[in-house]
Amino acid sequence: MKSGSGLFITFEGSEGCGKSTQIERLHKRMETTGRIVKITREPGGTLLGEELRELLKYSKPQKLMKPETELLMFAASRAQLVREFIEPEIRQGTVVLCDRFMDSTTAYQGIARAIPAEDVFAINNFAVGNCIPDLTLYMDVSPQVGMSRIRKRVRPVGAAVDRIEQEPTEFFERVRQGYKELVKAFPERIKQIDGDKSPDAVEEEIWNHVKKLLL
Amino acid sequence: MKSGSGLFITFEGSEGCGKSTQIERLHKRMETTGRIVKITREPGGTLLGEELRELLKYSKPQKLMKPETELLMFAASRAQLVREFIEPEIRQGTVVLCDRFMDSTTAYQGIARAIPAEDVFAINNFAVGNCIPDLTLYMDVSPQVGMSRIRKRVRPVGAAVDRIEQEPTEFFERVRQGYKELVKAFPERIKQIDGDKSPDAVEEEIWNHVKKLLL
Repeated sequence: MKSGSGLFITFEGSEGCGKSTQIERLHKRMETTGRIVKITREPGGTLLGEELRELLKYSKPQKLMKPETELLMFAASRAQLVREFIEPEIRQGTVVLCDRFMDSTTAYQGIARAIPAEDVFAINNFAVGNCIPDLTLYMDVSPQVGMSRIRKRVRPVGAAVDRIEQEPTEFFERVRQGYKELVKAFPERIKQIDGDKSPDAVEEEIWNHVKKLLL
Repeated sequence: MKSGSGLFITFEGSEGCGKSTQIERLHKRMETTGRIVKITREPGGTLLGEELRELLKYSKPQKLMKPETELLMFAASRAQLVREFIEPEIRQGTVVLCDRFMDSTTAYQGIARAIPAEDVFAINNFAVGNCIPDLTLYMDVSPQVGMSRIRKRVRPVGAAVDRIEQEPTEFFERVRQGYKELVKAFPERIKQIDGDKSPDAVEEEIWNHVKKLLL
């Protein structure tokens, strides 16, 4: 979204791809340039969105949630985040870093859950309006690597593995396939990053893409 | 939805139109024919849907909910209700009576909140799939009559007036206009009932429409 002086950068990838680490690193590095940088996430990022996030991750009985319901709840959280937070911030010149955005819906609900592409496209468009990322960083890792990182995570006592983390490996293979199709379809916007590399190497690769937007 | 031996009948109308009373009456009357009859409602009707209903009606800060978010949350609740409850019941031969359905979205979010018709149409279609009502009873009352009935309602101690009930009269005028456009657009499916008449007279008018489906 080029309308303001801000920037909108989204991070995408499967569970355990290293998004959170790299968002923090980019945040710090970007602030050294004197820009105001804010981090948000999906689903969530607003009061209402965080309530939807809870339902999406931990509602019971979880098995009953239909793919169409899931897609529409993600879209609702996104519609709110765009209008309540991202657009106003971008208009004020902020750099917004968002952990997941519209491409997650295409990869997870569209390709991995096999919801028709035209439906996903129409609902994504409705949810985001004109708020398209300036840059999307897709962090590619194999499901095996991602899952082994997830299992090593220190979780708060009593914190459950969420609904999507419980999906089988084949699901995350399809998600990865979905992201790769998106990289091919939108090569200008979406950059694939090798998430198997060291955090320092990944940080440099990301910075090389981001600094082009700062010129 | 003609696929099973069941029937799917929806009730529509603005606040205070008398839907709840008439759904109860139709339920009783229909059971005398030996059919299995179940009542559900929107938003809600499933465990997940009822959680969405709470957010839609009472989430705070309420003023921040964007029209696009509202539409997508109603659609999410509907997608779940259709697949978890309505379709399986209809396949088993049940008569399902639903308090609000897709036409509420067209009237409230589409026409009253001015979301473009093609977006409302696409999202409604995605949410309901093939689950179109066999009959929709639109109970028409003026906003003044509806609101005066709402104000007379006995509410549980501490129960708040919900987010939509707080809209100004002009909003409900637009909702009514929206419903009237729908009656014109789908005269076979949607029947307009004069909600200003006595409950007994309204019950008879409704029964005259419903009994044609039972032949």
